[in-house]
Amino acid sequence: MPQVSKDKGTRMIITFMSDFGTKDGYVGSVKGVLLKEAPDARLIDITHEIQPFNIKEAAYSLLNYYDSFPKGTVHLIVVDPGVGSERKPVIIRTLDYFFVGPDNGVFNFILKREAYQAFEIRPEVVNPQSFSNTFHGRDIFAPTAALLAKGIKPEEIAMPLERVVIDDHQELKLENNTCKAAVVSVDHFGNIIFALSREDLKHWKKVIKLVNFKNFKSDRIWDYYAQQKVGKPLVLWNSKNMLEIALSQGHAANYFKVDPKKDFALIELSDVTEKVENN
Amino acid sequence: MPQVSKDKGTRMIITFMSDFGTKDGYVGSVKGVLLKEAPDARLIDITHEIQPFNIKEAAYSLLNYYDSFPKGTVHLIVVDPGVGSERKPVIIRTLDYFFVGPDNGVFNFILKREAYQAFEIRPEVVNPQSFSNTFHGRDIFAPTAALLAKGIKPEEIAMPLERVVIDDHQELKLENNTCKAAVVSVDHFGNIIFALSREDLKHWKKVIKLVNFKNFKSDRIWDYYAQQKVGKPLVLWNSKNMLEIALSQGHAANYFKVDPKKDFALIELSDVTEKVENN
Amino acid sequence: MPQVSKDKGTRMIITFMSDFGTKDGYVGSVKGVLLKEAPDARLIDITHEIQPFNIKEAAYSLLNYYDSFPKGTVHLIVVDPGVGSERKPVIIRTLDYFFVGPDNGVFNFILKREAYQAFEIRPEVVNPQSFSNTFHGRDIFAPTAALLAKGIKPEEIAMPLERVVIDDHQELKLENNTCKAAVVSVDHFGNIIFALSREDLKHWKKVIKLVNFKNFKSDRIWDYYAQQKVGKPLVLWNSKNMLEIALSQGHAANYFKVDPKKDFALIELSDVTEKVENN
Repeated sequence: MPQVSKDKGTRMIITFMSDFGTKDGYVGSVKGVLLKEAPDARLIDITHEIQPFNIKEAAYSLLNYYDSFPKGTVHLIVVDPGVGSERKPVIIRTLDYFFVGPDNGVFNFILKREAYQAFEIRPEVVNPQSFSNTFHGRDIFAPTAALLAKGIKPEEIAMPLERVVIDDHQELKLENNTCKAAVVSVDHFGNIIFALSREDLKHWKKVIKLVNFKNFKSDRIWDYYAQQKVGKPLVLWNSKNMLEIALSQGHAANYFKVDPKKDFALIELSDVTEKVENN
Repeated sequence: MPQVSKDKGTRMIITFMSDFGTKDGYVGSVKGVLLKEAPDARLIDITHEIQPFNIKEAAYSLLNYYDSFPKGTVHLIVVDPGVGSERKPVIIRTLDYFFVGPDNGVFNFILKREAYQAFEIRPEVVNPQSFSNTFHGRDIFAPTAALLAKGIKPEEIAMPLERVVIDDHQELKLENNTCKAAVVSVDHFGNIIFALSREDLKHWKKVIKLVNFKNFKSDRIWDYYAQQKVGKPLVLWNSKNMLEIALSQGHAANYFKVDPKKDFALIELSDVTEKVENN
Repeated sequence: MPQVSKDKGTRMIITFMSDFGTKDGYVGSVKGVLLKEAPDARLIDITHEIQPFNIKEAAYSLLNYYDSFPKGTVHLIVVDPGVGSERKPVIIRTLDYFFVGPDNGVFNFILKREAYQAFEIRPEVVNPQSFSNTFHGRDIFAPTAALLAKGIKPEEIAMPLERVVIDDHQELKLENNTCKAAVVSVDHFGNIIFALSREDLKHWKKVIKLVNFKNFKSDRIWDYYAQQKVGKPLVLWNSKNMLEIALSQGHAANYFKVDPKKDFALIELSDVTEKVENN
């Protein structure tokens, strides 16, 4: 059973990601609740600029930051198109962290990579007064995150949950020595990130022979952006060890006119034994 | 007389909202001043993405977050098209909070809802060195907020002020059993919020019979967004108990081509005694 | 030799500016590293909305905030188009502050205005485990900033560096009594800021006679925006004492169709002895 304990002597950290934008004061009101309930917690903004309702974007962002934080950190994620409906408010406990948010797929990457326990939050316990049907971020998720940051155990405020939403999307397919990897994200710089990680290759005992994306083919994996001429595309393993196509000092997604919902890369692989260059 | 006292044992909180954007470092310079003057205060960003000079947007945002925060919080608001002119720099003290900013209408909702005392800041007292004519956020409002966070009383740095700007806009009109409510805000999700609150109805002892907005009529008040089919409009009481028209998983303001300056809802009411459904 | 010491009794501050945007979680991952390494440090967001790769914009933003902060503050700046290439990761130590980032011109204004010592960071010392080639913000700069915040001396983690990048751009030219000042920045409000400061004039013992910008001529220096009629242009010394052309409650850069790369102001000067009005 995973046990989260915070590092000695540090104040508990709550990170906060949402699709609220900031201008309406909704983010502010969640922060107020967090500070009212857990006055000693440290609040760390991740982002509030997730595209409204874009669960997939939130999931990939979470992957990028969750394990940089100290043990015991509470990660609060509110991207919640189904607020008020039957989607469940949940706590996910892993070996090192707590995650609080809606059970709608935002925890996809965590659930695939970590040992975890899931709990369904009991709204009447975390917020005995009353709660709105439209703003669970403020009325259910924030009180829950604050209680966890204060050392309350998930068992005291939530019920064990057997099944959580894991969305597979069939984003990565291997057939013979060709692999098809969907676009996972287009980042702020226009870099295109695909659903193939270095770990996948290790697991399969394969190496890359050729990357195909639209009319671009590359048998070279580059080390860093500035290695390529300005304005030219390159392929590399990004800082999370996922396959990425970038444009040196440019915007690859505009250059390739990427549609993240439809586009994918075709990658030819060969066995590790037939060692290929640059890989 | 309102008395603000902070919760025991907690560090004083300063929240900060502006229309500065962040890229120019103006927000950064205000934060530096706050930390120089009140090194123990906690700084909480609300937003810096208020539309430049949009006092009404700032006022509604403030309504959404101010009372989520612990007692004693200092709310700093810098949306200040009249900087350097005769609009007054003010402190508003309510029972639980301090507000610092320009007297230009940003405190509209607070002044209507809370018992308060108003003070005009004495710039030469809060910043004895010197101050620019173009950046009172850094040179007058930030030092004031920091001093209040340190426990200095408004009376020591400001003069009692009898009249403050309250903008009525005639946003809500009741005639017989029909009420006309202006658009107060279009939020980040495109939800349209109107100047009618549940409290107004309680006060009038009325209930809603029919909501009219452009070509949309609804005699139902919904509980949450996902109750309606995706892409369809609905009416609900939002998380601040104000009337809202939304589009399930969509952008109501685009759908209805809303002009916040001109558009309004016509709402037919009936007396509480003739009980109406869904209300 | 500059000596930075922090103010007694306060926790060390790390400010953070980048061009990452926030949605991808990259900023979040840097914050996690900072908190893991320096759990007591205070993290202050400056901005993550610097235009991707825009070193000049970052340099001007830094000028606006760096000296508002308490002595001992560590300023972390990650705007780094050359990540992974031969541009050096550096620490700049001034009398009051530390600066951490790439040696690519972002420290331009600091290097011109402050006494400093420069150091080249030793990546294998600040991050003995391993580091990516594409994300030095997380893997090299963040650990460095955290170590400095904990009181580690630059000499322990970096080597003295003799030459750093200072970009002169010939942004300000004086010939006889005419001075040509390039556009340094267009800010969030559309104000146009030029490479001429009040200090330059003092140094030259000159005053302004006439400002020419495109078809606009002004022999008046205004005190604040609201002094001019709404929608009309004005010239003033901004809050950093740099020459600025603004539009009262409007967007000067749109009004003048400014191209920051090409446009400049022509300013006629006269000697201090022939005193000119409004200056």
